[in-house]
Amino acid sequence: MKAWVFQGPGRAAWQEVADPVLQETSDAIVRVDTVAICGTDLHILKGDVPDVAPGTVLGHEAVGEVVETGADVDTVRPGDRVLVSCVSGCGRCRFCREQAYGQCLDGGGWVLGHLADGTQAEYVRVPYADTSLHALPHNVTGHDAVLLSDVFPTAYEVGVLNGRVRPGDTVAVVGCGPIGLAAVATAQLCSPHTVIAVDLAASRLQAAKNLGADAVVPAGEQPEQLVDDLTGGLGADVVIEAVGLPETFELCTRMVRPGGRVANAGVHGRPVTLHLEKLWNRNVTITTGLVDTYSTPTLLRLLEARKLPTGPFVTHTFELHEMAEAYDVFAAAADTGALKVVLGGPHHDVLVPRF
Amino acid sequence: MKAWVFQGPGRAAWQEVADPVLQETSDAIVRVDTVAICGTDLHILKGDVPDVAPGTVLGHEAVGEVVETGADVDTVRPGDRVLVSCVSGCGRCRFCREQAYGQCLDGGGWVLGHLADGTQAEYVRVPYADTSLHALPHNVTGHDAVLLSDVFPTAYEVGVLNGRVRPGDTVAVVGCGPIGLAAVATAQLCSPHTVIAVDLAASRLQAAKNLGADAVVPAGEQPEQLVDDLTGGLGADVVIEAVGLPETFELCTRMVRPGGRVANAGVHGRPVTLHLEKLWNRNVTITTGLVDTYSTPTLLRLLEARKLPTGPFVTHTFELHEMAEAYDVFAAAADTGALKVVLGGPHHDVLVPRF
Repeated sequence: MKAWVFQGPGRAAWQEVADPVLQETSDAIVRVDTVAICGTDLHILKGDVPDVAPGTVLGHEAVGEVVETGADVDTVRPGDRVLVSCVSGCGRCRFCREQAYGQCLDGGGWVLGHLADGTQAEYVRVPYADTSLHALPHNVTGHDAVLLSDVFPTAYEVGVLNGRVRPGDTVAVVGCGPIGLAAVATAQLCSPHTVIAVDLAASRLQAAKNLGADAVVPAGEQPEQLVDDLTGGLGADVVIEAVGLPETFELCTRMVRPGGRVANAGVHGRPVTLHLEKLWNRNVTITTGLVDTYSTPTLLRLLEARKLPTGPFVTHTFELHEMAEAYDVFAAAADTGALKVVLGGPHHDVLVPRF
Repeated sequence: MKAWVFQGPGRAAWQEVADPVLQETSDAIVRVDTVAICGTDLHILKGDVPDVAPGTVLGHEAVGEVVETGADVDTVRPGDRVLVSCVSGCGRCRFCREQAYGQCLDGGGWVLGHLADGTQAEYVRVPYADTSLHALPHNVTGHDAVLLSDVFPTAYEVGVLNGRVRPGDTVAVVGCGPIGLAAVATAQLCSPHTVIAVDLAASRLQAAKNLGADAVVPAGEQPEQLVDDLTGGLGADVVIEAVGLPETFELCTRMVRPGGRVANAGVHGRPVTLHLEKLWNRNVTITTGLVDTYSTPTLLRLLEARKLPTGPFVTHTFELHEMAEAYDVFAAAADTGALKVVLGGPHHDVLVPRF
């Protein structure tokens, strides 16, 4: 088959590799129909994630069709159209039993395109298929469903649910890439009073508005000032960090009210300064997290019911073999306006109107 | 009356001042029988808390007798023996209605010995007496009760409850001053599997053992190693910071397991480094807090039922007028072994056995 193979920092290629085969009785083989590129894939390509070995097929987001299952796989069978989750879980260890599949102690967690070959390929071997694959409802397109491999559960679990968004809350989302935008969208499942979106790119702020943000803070304006104005000087109930830089994290801790929550969803490569000399007595909660994907079945049901807005996410589409061009467009997002770049897909889909 | 008056950085004196009088209809005047010194008082005396004005009577922990009440005070009356809480709350603002009395928006919060004259005096005016005073059960001594002005509710709320200690948890407490020791004691209300106490002073570790710590880490040994050994390399479920230094906070974030909680109870004067490059994907929760004292009635009932161990806390006692000597002993805790230094008191008490 063909696959997008990491060859060391700065190098990857769409090349011929051996077809994947079942290795464990809990594995499944999936033919990839739709696949997306994640910001994390760019980090890997730069060499920022040293535990990805050269020779690894990248990618952890996909929709496809099951072609083969191991003897112990019960929940899907060949012919099923499935979502491939970015996180696998053994389902039996201490952490999996507490829904913390992302922290699985027995070979699960984030495996695809990281510790094992991933989804940017014609076929992928999926470990722990029973917890990693989700049969797709017929009215859900691959372009929509692939957003539930990583983007939506990450934004919802690590941003909205860790941040404990409650009805009536003021929620600020710092960073409006795919994760931040999905946080804007899924925060509204919890009926906030006001959602404030912060980004430097006008196009991303427009997408945030389309997804229901009540107020946006463009480049050059002061997010803290707007939050103060909207909250009588108190600060936001919940601030979701979706960038992954020290300065944006520190901004979040300045925007939160006493008793509020800062939910970090950004992937950080450097330490940050935590101003405990100001925060020690403010009853603040700060959370971090890798997605566990415990919410994926719920999000799929909402998608099926057309209660999850997906309109602005997929900005660019390619055929699977155009992987190199797709990466170029995604890496140049500041110029191309790319949000999610998706490959393959719609020819296998039952099309439904977006909203 | 006589009172311990802050006169600017480095200076305070036991001196004659005007008797306090009712200022609001929600005030009460309390004759102080028992009073304690808190580490925060030392910080004020050093000049670390600039919003304490020279001329302020210090102190926020006391037991005494109500001598006068404002027209709107309903829950106590003259003659009642009461605990004076370190935190007052209007009971009506948004934060008070959510039990966040420490963040009261209408003149409550930590007021005594901070923004108004405090308890290290013969008499004290207590604002919002209905939420700030607690009538004492007859079998509770002043020396025990005064630990519930601040120490026990802070350790329990900001340490144990913010840390969400659950049955079976491994709990590490870093710092075994009064707050850390009270965290060791109150963690056991939640039936942990193991409590690990960390301090540099052997006497404090012995006190932690007396209060039920299962393991202690003395100076020179590696807390992370012991926690790893006791948890199969995972880390502690809950780590409570009770020191207030960057290095101890950072130690706490290295000792916590994926999915675990770091509850900061220390008072910090400097920023800390938060290693988000290691923690972003570990599902960690970090909390800060000023005590709200919502747990004080519960803790008092436990004290009345003799289910709250208080034995090791009060190491030194003085008469009220010996305030200067008491401060000296408390400030030299590394030499004197002082934990809680308490003034006045036992002659007004009904004595009951300690346990």
